[in-house]
Amino acid sequence: MDKPYVIGIDMGGTNTAFGVVDRRGEILFRSSISTLGYTKGEDYVNDLGNAVNDLIDNNNLRDDVKGIGMGVPNGNMNNGTIENAANIPWAKGIPVPLAAMMEKKTGFPCKLTNDANAAALGEMAYGVANGLKDFIVITLGTGVGSGIVSNGQLVVGHDGFAGELGHVRIVRENGRNCGCGRTGCLETYTSATGVARTAREFLDLQPERESLLRNVQHRPITSKDVFEAAKKGDSLAIDVFNFTGRILGEAFSDFIAFSSPKAFILFGGLAHAGNFLLDPLKKAMEENVLNVYKGKTEIVISKLNDAEAAILGASALAWE
Amino acid sequence: MDKPYVIGIDMGGTNTAFGVVDRRGEILFRSSISTLGYTKGEDYVNDLGNAVNDLIDNNNLRDDVKGIGMGVPNGNMNNGTIENAANIPWAKGIPVPLAAMMEKKTGFPCKLTNDANAAALGEMAYGVANGLKDFIVITLGTGVGSGIVSNGQLVVGHDGFAGELGHVRIVRENGRNCGCGRTGCLETYTSATGVARTAREFLDLQPERESLLRNVQHRPITSKDVFEAAKKGDSLAIDVFNFTGRILGEAFSDFIAFSSPKAFILFGGLAHAGNFLLDPLKKAMEENVLNVYKGKTEIVISKLNDAEAAILGASALAWE
Repeated sequence: MDKPYVIGIDMGGTNTAFGVVDRRGEILFRSSISTLGYTKGEDYVNDLGNAVNDLIDNNNLRDDVKGIGMGVPNGNMNNGTIENAANIPWAKGIPVPLAAMMEKKTGFPCKLTNDANAAALGEMAYGVANGLKDFIVITLGTGVGSGIVSNGQLVVGHDGFAGELGHVRIVRENGRNCGCGRTGCLETYTSATGVARTAREFLDLQPERESLLRNVQHRPITSKDVFEAAKKGDSLAIDVFNFTGRILGEAFSDFIAFSSPKAFILFGGLAHAGNFLLDPLKKAMEENVLNVYKGKTEIVISKLNDAEAAILGASALAWE
Repeated sequence: MDKPYVIGIDMGGTNTAFGVVDRRGEILFRSSISTLGYTKGEDYVNDLGNAVNDLIDNNNLRDDVKGIGMGVPNGNMNNGTIENAANIPWAKGIPVPLAAMMEKKTGFPCKLTNDANAAALGEMAYGVANGLKDFIVITLGTGVGSGIVSNGQLVVGHDGFAGELGHVRIVRENGRNCGCGRTGCLETYTSATGVARTAREFLDLQPERESLLRNVQHRPITSKDVFEAAKKGDSLAIDVFNFTGRILGEAFSDFIAFSSPKAFILFGGLAHAGNFLLDPLKKAMEENVLNVYKGKTEIVISKLNDAEAAILGASALAWE
């Protein structure tokens, strides 16, 4: 009979959280270890594998676990490696075969992918994409990530690194500088960081215009400040979301011409801005999209719990 | 035993050509009917079906044909219909179930898709994409079409109409008017028509600059004129290709961030411009692409014979 549980592991730069997940997306047991302080992948895998084995054995589940799925920074699904992850000191240079190492350590089959792809699988297994075969998850956090599903399968590309829609060039002339070394990338405008940047630009460029955001002092403005001000009716803050939504909607109209998804699923901090973001986004998407696609694509906010989504997404990989 | 032949049907606005194709991509027998003069889909299917049946029966192949594949303007692979095809009078309004009608008429299973998707399948079955699972065919003709393959499968989207990369907005401000009613679409710059348009713009904007293209009179300049002039060393014509290649390369760098293809395969009239187009294209693609993808994606010119490629592409659908 098919085994009822999988393990989902969310490897973050600081913490690695994991849990035992059932088919409906309930996390039954969970635990974590620190990601910090390791200089060798072997040591990290040793400690993580021991902790995972403990969680399984302490709950007497060794015969009930089907496998392990991991969401890993710069994780490559094609070959189960972690490659050039910015915040993981032991994952520079030569790719580290993390999935194979975890398999050996735990005795369970292990697959991995990056966070945004894991999020897409999580939505398909337990979330709003259940039943959809063509959709795109867009994560709007510090950066902009994406997980693309076409024909019921993740689009991973020949090298395992497809789906970097945050780095599509949405502004080709005089675009904002991006952390990737290029300019005009979507994430410089539509990430949480991008929203804060837009707010600061608007305040600088319109010095006469009143805004609650001028009260934020002694620390940088955040996207949350902009959201709070917008809720209070602050017109500059509302314009910041209008600008952000318009750019995201224009980008979506191009993405539709690529894979014609049934839905975009928004996840991450900025997705909580609700209609401040959604209204201008939908308007710009419909205005800019090719006729054949008009009125066909939905924008949906993820319903997965922020604190659980990463583990759930990773775990979904283990059902595949 | 598996049957050795399929039928490929290329439905054009003027002519419908079809042939018997073997596994290696040889067209053994071929024939055609006119596409013009029909007001009802039933009549077209009746005549086409009879002609296909004749070709099969006259060569005594009824037991050796596996099925029929069709390349159809605005063909929808998901449900086998032709929808709102601009040049087919009987295919306006309600979608016409062309594949099902042909199945009934001929007795063979029939699938259809649009021309660019058929081209992608043709490259995978018989052409330079043989063995590739992730690639994009770009057709550079009167317009710009695309067929996207990810994980060995066509990307058709939830509605069957994915892959309109010619209508990605490559210029967002003051872009050229496109036949689709929008502005700045890739095909207004990088189709054969777009190249001729660029040449006329360059001639107008640089009235002092000498060019062989100024000798073309009493008729509009074509992309072929630009190619002939470039071969003779005409610097304005060479600059037209530099401009075209740069825009196409910038677009490719964004497409890579979507599906990370191993190769772009260029097909159609403009693909014959060779290095005049390829050199600036490759340069712009590599300069603009995200670091993780640098140096990984090839640009390949289709080797399929122009006169046969459409039948071959359509036929590939019938092997699936």
